[in-house]
Amino acid sequence: MINFETSPEKYKHWKLKIDGAVATLSMDVQEDETLADGYKLKLNSYDLGVDIELADAVQRLRFEHPEVKVVLVTSLKPRIFCAGANIYMLGTSTHAFKVNFCKFTNETRCAIEDASRHSGQRYVAALNGTASGGGYELAIACDEIYLVDDGNSAISLPEVPLLGVLPGTGGLTRLVDKRKVRRDRADVFSTLAEGLKGKRAKDWGLIEDYFPTSKFDVEIATRVRSIAEASDTTVAARGITLGPLQVEATADGREYKYVSVKLNREGRYADLTMRAPEADAPRTIEEIEKLGDSYWPLRAFRELDDALLHLRVNELETGLVCVRTTGEAGRVLAIDKTLISLKDHWLIREIILNIARVLRRLDLTAKSFFALIEPGSCFAGSLLELALSADRTYMLNSADEDVSIATSEMNRGALPMSNGLTRLQSRFQAEPEKAEKLFEHTGAFDTDQAEEAGLVTFAPDDLDWDDEIRLAIEERTSLSPDALTGMEASLRFAGPETMDTKIFGRLTAWQNWIFQRPNAVGEHGALTNYGKPTQAQFDYKRT
Amino acid sequence: MINFETSPEKYKHWKLKIDGAVATLSMDVQEDETLADGYKLKLNSYDLGVDIELADAVQRLRFEHPEVKVVLVTSLKPRIFCAGANIYMLGTSTHAFKVNFCKFTNETRCAIEDASRHSGQRYVAALNGTASGGGYELAIACDEIYLVDDGNSAISLPEVPLLGVLPGTGGLTRLVDKRKVRRDRADVFSTLAEGLKGKRAKDWGLIEDYFPTSKFDVEIATRVRSIAEASDTTVAARGITLGPLQVEATADGREYKYVSVKLNREGRYADLTMRAPEADAPRTIEEIEKLGDSYWPLRAFRELDDALLHLRVNELETGLVCVRTTGEAGRVLAIDKTLISLKDHWLIREIILNIARVLRRLDLTAKSFFALIEPGSCFAGSLLELALSADRTYMLNSADEDVSIATSEMNRGALPMSNGLTRLQSRFQAEPEKAEKLFEHTGAFDTDQAEEAGLVTFAPDDLDWDDEIRLAIEERTSLSPDALTGMEASLRFAGPETMDTKIFGRLTAWQNWIFQRPNAVGEHGALTNYGKPTQAQFDYKRT
Repeated sequence: MINFETSPEKYKHWKLKIDGAVATLSMDVQEDETLADGYKLKLNSYDLGVDIELADAVQRLRFEHPEVKVVLVTSLKPRIFCAGANIYMLGTSTHAFKVNFCKFTNETRCAIEDASRHSGQRYVAALNGTASGGGYELAIACDEIYLVDDGNSAISLPEVPLLGVLPGTGGLTRLVDKRKVRRDRADVFSTLAEGLKGKRAKDWGLIEDYFPTSKFDVEIATRVRSIAEASDTTVAARGITLGPLQVEATADGREYKYVSVKLNREGRYADLTMRAPEADAPRTIEEIEKLGDSYWPLRAFRELDDALLHLRVNELETGLVCVRTTGEAGRVLAIDKTLISLKDHWLIREIILNIARVLRRLDLTAKSFFALIEPGSCFAGSLLELALSADRTYMLNSADEDVSIATSEMNRGALPMSNGLTRLQSRFQAEPEKAEKLFEHTGAFDTDQAEEAGLVTFAPDDLDWDDEIRLAIEERTSLSPDALTGMEASLRFAGPETMDTKIFGRLTAWQNWIFQRPNAVGEHGALTNYGKPTQAQFDYKRT
Repeated sequence: MINFETSPEKYKHWKLKIDGAVATLSMDVQEDETLADGYKLKLNSYDLGVDIELADAVQRLRFEHPEVKVVLVTSLKPRIFCAGANIYMLGTSTHAFKVNFCKFTNETRCAIEDASRHSGQRYVAALNGTASGGGYELAIACDEIYLVDDGNSAISLPEVPLLGVLPGTGGLTRLVDKRKVRRDRADVFSTLAEGLKGKRAKDWGLIEDYFPTSKFDVEIATRVRSIAEASDTTVAARGITLGPLQVEATADGREYKYVSVKLNREGRYADLTMRAPEADAPRTIEEIEKLGDSYWPLRAFRELDDALLHLRVNELETGLVCVRTTGEAGRVLAIDKTLISLKDHWLIREIILNIARVLRRLDLTAKSFFALIEPGSCFAGSLLELALSADRTYMLNSADEDVSIATSEMNRGALPMSNGLTRLQSRFQAEPEKAEKLFEHTGAFDTDQAEEAGLVTFAPDDLDWDDEIRLAIEERTSLSPDALTGMEASLRFAGPETMDTKIFGRLTAWQNWIFQRPNAVGEHGALTNYGKPTQAQFDYKRT
């Protein structure tokens, strides 16, 4: 079972050093500390274990070190920055694992860009050696890239020429959409196994600059200092510590403080429940800082994040997640109010950004989600997003019991999807004014009102509820899991596209296709044959 | 060998009737008139042959019947509009054929929308019976959809629940992005094998309206008349006839009037040459109308279109197309000038729109393109787009001979890519002003100027030219064809996304992935098992 929780003192592959406004994140991958058997992590190549540490570092920098304005990403290995994802790991992994691995590494790189854009932490890649494949893709997720000019070090995307696959971590999209490299040059670069060195790499816009070995450290330090000094973000007082989540894992599920996951393995679905806080949450920043990582909106969504990652990677046969909430909606709404009123404080900003990221992780999870709204539920404000993220929403229409949902200001832009829209805007593409009009409604929506407002898919009554839910679950889990993945990836993201949706929707889909092709993973495929004395043999039919 | 040329008198599956401003395009698929063996085209299901006729009809309506303002799409079969792509055909086709089939049918539906948007020919789908799968996808490519309410007829997308694949002809994208159906309703509809009948289909925005059988024809006629009368497009005089292309097909290639294709099968590449007109073309609309389909910009790009389709479907192992032009650049530029000055005339408008469509077909072709600019070439104006479409452009830097390229007003917006940008805008994402600044340059660009302007990838000199081109070809054709397809699909479309790019980039990639999955096409896959007594068996791992 893969565990996504870690912390700096447990890191095997990264060193995180904080020096005032500058953090240095150094890659020093330990060859033998692999997540699985059968490969060695040579030349700072990585597997999922390495990336879990990176994701943790990016997350902690935001919460624990808000004073940091520049994150310098570099390597402790001589002459090599990073050789990218380990090929032997890829070659020996299942299709599902490869796909999940790429999705997580992509989310981590998007998180780097999110930190740069919204948290005022700029990332500088100091390539003190060759950055190939995923190594360059890590660099291109940073704001600036500097390459050592030692006569040898290069940047490259050798996936197409050497491995018969795509650079799977956003490289192609970021080449033309982020760095806006001319498409013909991007074509040359992406087919050139040996890559490019300093001068041409700079001329073509693939790096900011290059420096000779003797001057490299000084130049980087100068640049880093200048970014830190130019930073206009107010220096925050002190970070909070992200302690480990308490989770009780059993054969049938996982029990966190505010999140429960119950696996119905035979039925191939999971019940996931999020709980509102057990008491009213504090409303002042001082009290919230004191609570730190046990403040509900931080803790609950960190737990949800861990639960989603667990389901993705460790519970492949779970095809459907039935999402419920329980507790006092009023408490959730009160917290939303606090969050919105304090949103300019760095900690609250980070808590909101984290909720947004976790919800985007949900949107990008290759499982179906049904939200089930029953008596005692609290789909309100930020928890209403769970229902809006779901592929379908069922709300009980009860004559006897109160069932309701509610919006808050948090539904109005604080938690954007990968396409840049709110979930309400995505939902009401046909009637954009409807997304705004909802906020004129006072109080909660009962089932009739919710249906009228377009917020739920079906509203069965007490008599039908159990049967209808049971049938919906049975029907969903009987369908082809692959067709559902492709369908959901298409229906969830209506409207505009962003670099993120291009990476997850387009690039990922092509990579998944290629990851299955005999030319990559067949007996004579390029990925299979990498590092062997035999040559790849291709079926040259172009498709 | 599949032939893409046809004409109404040869149609087997469609009847095209013109009555003033209204054309009726009726589907009446002949079961046994299939393009391959092993299946029957029951219930107005279609194969590529049926769609080639549809594409031809859509094209001819624009050129031959500019007086038509409404195209009524309906069926001559009782109780069935269209059952979509034939499942047995899909089940027995190679992966490459399925992918090419879907690409062509998608292009045809995009051409319908292009005709509606730009040629003032509105499409109305009169569903006089059930429209399932590709049947509903054909309807949703039309502007309006009306369904008969006979107690039985429904619309549906049963691909996910019945076949374990996606609706492959844009259905999912058009549901949420064109008709802007709420995503949860789109989810329900796309997993409901039996589909929806009139009332709910209308409530959910899947159709415009539904009428009882007794009133169906009258209501449709009324609606069609009202669209025709409201049409503000000036009624054009008389169309021109699109005669058959003269092509000499040999074992090694195809020779058209203005286009040559030479296949280098061993090297897995093709040389494609477009020739400028052999004499100055006329400049008045009267002369051009007289020339009709032999007017160079119409003829030459129709030939290019046919050549591209031929290469896609009949020459799968050809992975690279080396594009050259020969002739007087001045003549091409003079024609561009004529086209721009007369662009408000319906015929010139159609000729320009056709060039744009053919170039988009090139952008979407899963083969590499290298443009080779040599002495005697005429990459000018509309032919310069060939170089701008290419993945790379090589231009000879000669001390002795003249080599040049030139822009025209045609490069400035008349020939948009699928992403809505000009090819120059797509090229200069990093420096948008550069795309405009080019037009300040007077006269042609010699090689140095072209390089300086960012218009070519490499400019080898006479000494290096032959070797460099040879090596580039050898290197390109040695790479994994699948990785190249995915790479090119990612690099060619930087910048904004449109419904078209979503269909070709995202939906298609997911469908291609699913088309390979054992859950669809394996021994126990849903597509394989369709219509058999055995049940599909899935590997339920979600990926």
